[in-house]
Amino acid sequence: MESSVLISEVGPRDGLQSVSTTMPIEHKLCWIDALVAAGVREIEVGSFVSPKLLPQMADTALVVEHALRHEGVTVMALVPNLRGAQTAFDAGVHKITLPVSASKAHSLANVKKTPQEMVQEIHTIVSVRNDLAPNVQIEAGISTAFGCTLQGIVDEDEVVALAKALVDAGVDEVGLSDTTGMANPAQVRRLFNRVRDVIGQKTGAAHMHNTRGLGLANCLAAYDVGVRTFDASLGGLGGCPYAPGASGNVVTEDLVFMFEAMGVNTGINLEKLIAAREPLRIGLPTESLYGMTPEAGLPKGFVQEFVNV
Amino acid sequence: MESSVLISEVGPRDGLQSVSTTMPIEHKLCWIDALVAAGVREIEVGSFVSPKLLPQMADTALVVEHALRHEGVTVMALVPNLRGAQTAFDAGVHKITLPVSASKAHSLANVKKTPQEMVQEIHTIVSVRNDLAPNVQIEAGISTAFGCTLQGIVDEDEVVALAKALVDAGVDEVGLSDTTGMANPAQVRRLFNRVRDVIGQKTGAAHMHNTRGLGLANCLAAYDVGVRTFDASLGGLGGCPYAPGASGNVVTEDLVFMFEAMGVNTGINLEKLIAAREPLRIGLPTESLYGMTPEAGLPKGFVQEFVNV
Repeated sequence: MESSVLISEVGPRDGLQSVSTTMPIEHKLCWIDALVAAGVREIEVGSFVSPKLLPQMADTALVVEHALRHEGVTVMALVPNLRGAQTAFDAGVHKITLPVSASKAHSLANVKKTPQEMVQEIHTIVSVRNDLAPNVQIEAGISTAFGCTLQGIVDEDEVVALAKALVDAGVDEVGLSDTTGMANPAQVRRLFNRVRDVIGQKTGAAHMHNTRGLGLANCLAAYDVGVRTFDASLGGLGGCPYAPGASGNVVTEDLVFMFEAMGVNTGINLEKLIAAREPLRIGLPTESLYGMTPEAGLPKGFVQEFVNV
Repeated sequence: MESSVLISEVGPRDGLQSVSTTMPIEHKLCWIDALVAAGVREIEVGSFVSPKLLPQMADTALVVEHALRHEGVTVMALVPNLRGAQTAFDAGVHKITLPVSASKAHSLANVKKTPQEMVQEIHTIVSVRNDLAPNVQIEAGISTAFGCTLQGIVDEDEVVALAKALVDAGVDEVGLSDTTGMANPAQVRRLFNRVRDVIGQKTGAAHMHNTRGLGLANCLAAYDVGVRTFDASLGGLGGCPYAPGASGNVVTEDLVFMFEAMGVNTGINLEKLIAAREPLRIGLPTESLYGMTPEAGLPKGFVQEFVNV
């Protein structure tokens, strides 16, 4: 095997919060169980945000409780602030992820704070974590790292400086998110390299969107420069409101197919992963699911030699 | 600019012969004119095959005649055999492309000849070219180079040997085609490197399909190992019959966006390229067009600095 990667499934959070329908909790749990059965080892199961803002996520504590029953699975939740972090610690998550926008305009729109205010908030969250939940990992995901629909181009120097500030604030890893689907492979390689030069091993996941069809190419580019954790969403759930019909997040099934075909071990059984679309479809019967590999099927002669699931 | 690439538009051939409707010639010509206006410098405008087999291509000689009026555009046609090559030479094409399958099963199904018999045929075609049309370039495209839906895995040694045999038969370049959408980036890098080791500068285009969503990632992989010519189809026309809803060829619009965003010059104006979908849509009103970039639009702040069209 050339190498291994960790596929971090974000559909139950990023996907479900992007659709207007709320998936009933029993379907969420079935879906998560199916993901685990396929070998998925890290799942962002929800977010701890105001249920007024995102009613789809109101049951996240219960979802966490269920997900924690699966041995060996890292249970993650997104939190936008200290209050969310405290609730997440109480719920017993293994890992929280905090969105920090490199674009000031997007940051204000998304979390009503400047990037600098978010760094300050995270500093406090790290202190609380150190005191009350020392085993919980803290990831910061730099949103709009590759461009912003509000301000356009995002200065790479600012992204690098923000990554450094976040590590100084005490986070365990910093990922880079192409929230708006504006990244290209050359930029992905350059920016991950620059960030790694400054924060080293704390460089985290690539979170790519497929808005302009470059999702997998950007993941390949990130892999080429040493990224080994990739966010993805089953069925490409997580649409971009301004891109009708365009799938949002990178499709987990296609990403896993790409890596497994390359001989890069994901630990995920593709047939079982494709089967995990069924509980998703049942739980969200009105949503379109994306993914080319599920439609085309696995190629004739394709064998996943190193998967034990 | 990091580099330049040549985008070879295959939609008028690969796309139109894959759909059951025949596009009326006046629409074909409008579409080709729009592609040229966008800066496309090489177009596979049709194929010289029996009109009984492919009535969609019956007017190829007239399409060639029209396309030849555009200065600086390489007018290509696909030919499956000597007879087609002679008709193409008579029509005045700049370049012919010959499909040679690495898979014996696919070769027999596609052209009713073994790969070896095709090499022999091409040997004859090269002689005729040398005598009657010495300025016409001859490309061989190795189909099913990365896998075959009939026989499954295709031996890489056989692909390399076939490339060598084709160069020995006198072709000017040999491309590699992922006819069935089974390629992955590691394999693309490995196989192009191996072929280049043997035939050097005669290594030609990457012709990738998007059947499993890896089209752009595979083009990126090919670019990384020095490939500078890429086949693509406007609107992703050229569906795969066994993959319903899956676009076939790599979408030209997305591929050009990827390269231009990377700072790699295609010479193609993206807005005009997206506008070229309109004559395609008018000419084929019942077909679905694919492409994420046209749906999402160009990113805010995106500028094509080096395009003069």
